Amino acid sequence: MVWVLLVAFTAMGQKSASKSPNIVLFFIDDLGYGDLSVTGALGYKTPNLDQLAAEGTRFTNFMAAQAVCSASRAALLTGCYPNRVGISGALGPESLVGLNPKEETIAELLKAKGYATGIFGKWHLGSKQEFLPLQQGFDEYYGVPYSHDMWPLHPWQKQAQYPPLYWIENNTSGKEIRNLDEVSELTPTITEKAVGFIKKNKNKPFFLYVPHPLPHVPLAASKRFKGKSEKGIFGDVLMELDWSVGEILKELKSQGLDQNTLVVFTSDNGPWLNYGDHAGSSGGFREGKGTSFEGGQREPTIMRWPGVIPAGRISNKLLSTIDILPTLAKLTGAKLPVEKIDGIEFVDLLKGDDTKTPRQEFLYYYRKNSLEAVRKDNWKLIFPHPGRSYEVSLPGKDGQPGPTSENHEFPKALYDLTRDPGERYNVLEQHPEIVAELEKIADRAREDLGDDLQKKEGKNRRSVGVVERK
Amino acid sequence: MVWVLLVAFTAMGQKSASKSPNIVLFFIDDLGYGDLSVTGALGYKTPNLDQLAAEGTRFTNFMAAQAVCSASRAALLTGCYPNRVGISGALGPESLVGLNPKEETIAELLKAKGYATGIFGKWHLGSKQEFLPLQQGFDEYYGVPYSHDMWPLHPWQKQAQYPPLYWIENNTSGKEIRNLDEVSELTPTITEKAVGFIKKNKNKPFFLYVPHPLPHVPLAASKRFKGKSEKGIFGDVLMELDWSVGEILKELKSQGLDQNTLVVFTSDNGPWLNYGDHAGSSGGFREGKGTSFEGGQREPTIMRWPGVIPAGRISNKLLSTIDILPTLAKLTGAKLPVEKIDGIEFVDLLKGDDTKTPRQEFLYYYRKNSLEAVRKDNWKLIFPHPGRSYEVSLPGKDGQPGPTSENHEFPKALYDLTRDPGERYNVLEQHPEIVAELEKIADRAREDLGDDLQKKEGKNRRSVGVVERK
Repeated sequence: MVWVLLVAFTAMGQKSASKSPNIVLFFIDDLGYGDLSVTGALGYKTPNLDQLAAEGTRFTNFMAAQAVCSASRAALLTGCYPNRVGISGALGPESLVGLNPKEETIAELLKAKGYATGIFGKWHLGSKQEFLPLQQGFDEYYGVPYSHDMWPLHPWQKQAQYPPLYWIENNTSGKEIRNLDEVSELTPTITEKAVGFIKKNKNKPFFLYVPHPLPHVPLAASKRFKGKSEKGIFGDVLMELDWSVGEILKELKSQGLDQNTLVVFTSDNGPWLNYGDHAGSSGGFREGKGTSFEGGQREPTIMRWPGVIPAGRISNKLLSTIDILPTLAKLTGAKLPVEKIDGIEFVDLLKGDDTKTPRQEFLYYYRKNSLEAVRKDNWKLIFPHPGRSYEVSLPGKDGQPGPTSENHEFPKALYDLTRDPGERYNVLEQHPEIVAELEKIADRAREDLGDDLQKKEGKNRRSVGVVERK
Repeated sequence: MVWVLLVAFTAMGQKSASKSPNIVLFFIDDLGYGDLSVTGALGYKTPNLDQLAAEGTRFTNFMAAQAVCSASRAALLTGCYPNRVGISGALGPESLVGLNPKEETIAELLKAKGYATGIFGKWHLGSKQEFLPLQQGFDEYYGVPYSHDMWPLHPWQKQAQYPPLYWIENNTSGKEIRNLDEVSELTPTITEKAVGFIKKNKNKPFFLYVPHPLPHVPLAASKRFKGKSEKGIFGDVLMELDWSVGEILKELKSQGLDQNTLVVFTSDNGPWLNYGDHAGSSGGFREGKGTSFEGGQREPTIMRWPGVIPAGRISNKLLSTIDILPTLAKLTGAKLPVEKIDGIEFVDLLKGDDTKTPRQEFLYYYRKNSLEAVRKDNWKLIFPHPGRSYEVSLPGKDGQPGPTSENHEFPKALYDLTRDPGERYNVLEQHPEIVAELEKIADRAREDLGDDLQKKEGKNRRSVGVVERK
């Protein structure tokens, strides 16, 4: 693609070396690896994301830090494994915990550098006011506080008696979301707010965080997209999310900002497969959301910054959402958090230097603090653990989930992701020396962060935020 | 990617509307879906193929017509399911059968249009002289007659006492290939011959068919690439194959022909997984070579014709190697074969018209004539059948294969490839109406082509070529 790059650099080289690029960070909910056209989606198209990939770099080995909502978001915003900062699972509406306000988020680091900071979408790091985005470095917030299935119309937990779900603006609850029609307003409203934020802040550097609540269930698409895909409501919703990305990119362009903006697109975890036709596709990877198999954590990821990030490139290097914080810090000159983080900056790799391998190891923690797997390069060691499996029963239909096994006993296994990205061929007994090396990585992790599977505490976990019950 | 396309069309539009484009067709052996950098390969890079994909269209749902060597090649060259023309499996060195010389191949159709035609690489459609490429429309042949594991050094079939393996030039046997050092000459020699063919034919339209014998086992790389990858000999071999593609593309460019050449890159079948570290990766698809699961037949496929085929595009439409013949015929104005073919032309789709869905159905025949599965759009119905499975035992190492089960009993199953490209979730009982529809497609196929699983003959199979034993 040499000639294309030459054109790109000639046309754009001058404007794009800014030390204060704008940052637009899309964080989609329950999006599977296979849910974009560029990763093989069938039944609908994602032309705006295709174009983003053609103009930027797509990553094929980019790991969400944990395969569930709140934990994954905590990791994204702090650059830490979520158990380091005490967040696990998906926080319930009445939960008294949240991301500790003492943790330094991307928003705080960038705000200190003079960035305007806005979040439009789903927060899910604590719904008590103490934990809301404005207390974590964001100037503006408009969105939902947690997953929009945690409402009175929850598809199957009727007994849970979830409280009403409200839009939140900054620190104040607003309009209730009462039905699927109103769920269908999520994507367009968030898009409109994000576009407004760009307009308002066009003359200073900004950090725009867009954690879309969809395609997490329950699914709904606005009139413009309903029935438009060949894949039912899931495809409709994806078309609308792609439209949203397109609208935001269009605004960047019309404000003359796209050459000076780093756009990052990724997801919090893989597809919630037991929702069947209301779930996405892991693209052939094993299992999905809520598991430490690749289907749970491998995310379709694209980054674009014209003239800085090579266009049309694919990188297969191992990276994780926890690496985004230090990378943004290096790109913007923002200070790293005072406390230890787990992320590794990958600026050189991002700029096209493929001789760099910033990350060699990755820890797959799940549940409260269970070290279910570790990875080094292409090798992944699964520890024996009880976990979710979607392979034991039929998926659901029409918005009703099928059953999952939540305590399926997964045996110890070694997978070579080079030859076996689908984690089908357990080669444990063939590579004792590799198992030993991975065990050492796990032992170090257990010292540092602990491991509930081995009833080990860990020295370096920090406290989650807790408010007193009133 | 709009601005890139505009540049491409402006710069190249004039020269590329030729009615007689050159055709370069790479057909790689046992290459898995995940074996290119652009499909996620780890441990080595394929920069020339990356560039080909960036300058052309990559197909994610492109099916080899059968998951084994001779059958797949017969299908490619005739545009027919291989059982229609009587070819199955991988023909042995002493086999008295071959592709019937009465069948009209791509080479014959293009030769009739004034094309120079050359094949450099592995033939495997009959090694008796009656069946060699010069009797099937090729002006020139330099390569090996069948797989290069069918030789006295076969890795495990010691008893088979294969005869010596020779290079063949046109109709004449040449130098013997006696050891792995000489296997390492396959890729560079074929590359050199292909480059020479371009030089010689630069002033007339040509069809250059490059069926590389590697990365079929036994693997060997020349000095320049040996030890250069991080994935052992398999990676080295892939790097050398990528180099070969690069050399041939470079020659097109230096002759000023690349704007007027359609380059097609695909493979005969998926990876031979029980060879372990000497095999490729199916990229997460199920099973591999010799199976009718997606890992056996889904191939990484790229097509480039600057100014005609959109650059940097990914198409997820269902297509197959049997569709190449009618597509080339339409592009060049060549006449279709007189006898029935199964391929469907996809010229409009190739040129970027994504409203077109040329192929909706696909038949997965294997063994002699067993209809193991049928597909319509995203739905795939597996019929109960005994077949190869790699999932039941450990893979081999260092060139020695592990065992496979050749008669694993696969039950009837329905997979929704939209949500489940990995064929893990059997939803047979949830969709009786879709099963009924797929059964009808199968019944039609059985009338037409037969089905050994149901002891059905089929009306429209043609005869394979057979020579009398001398």
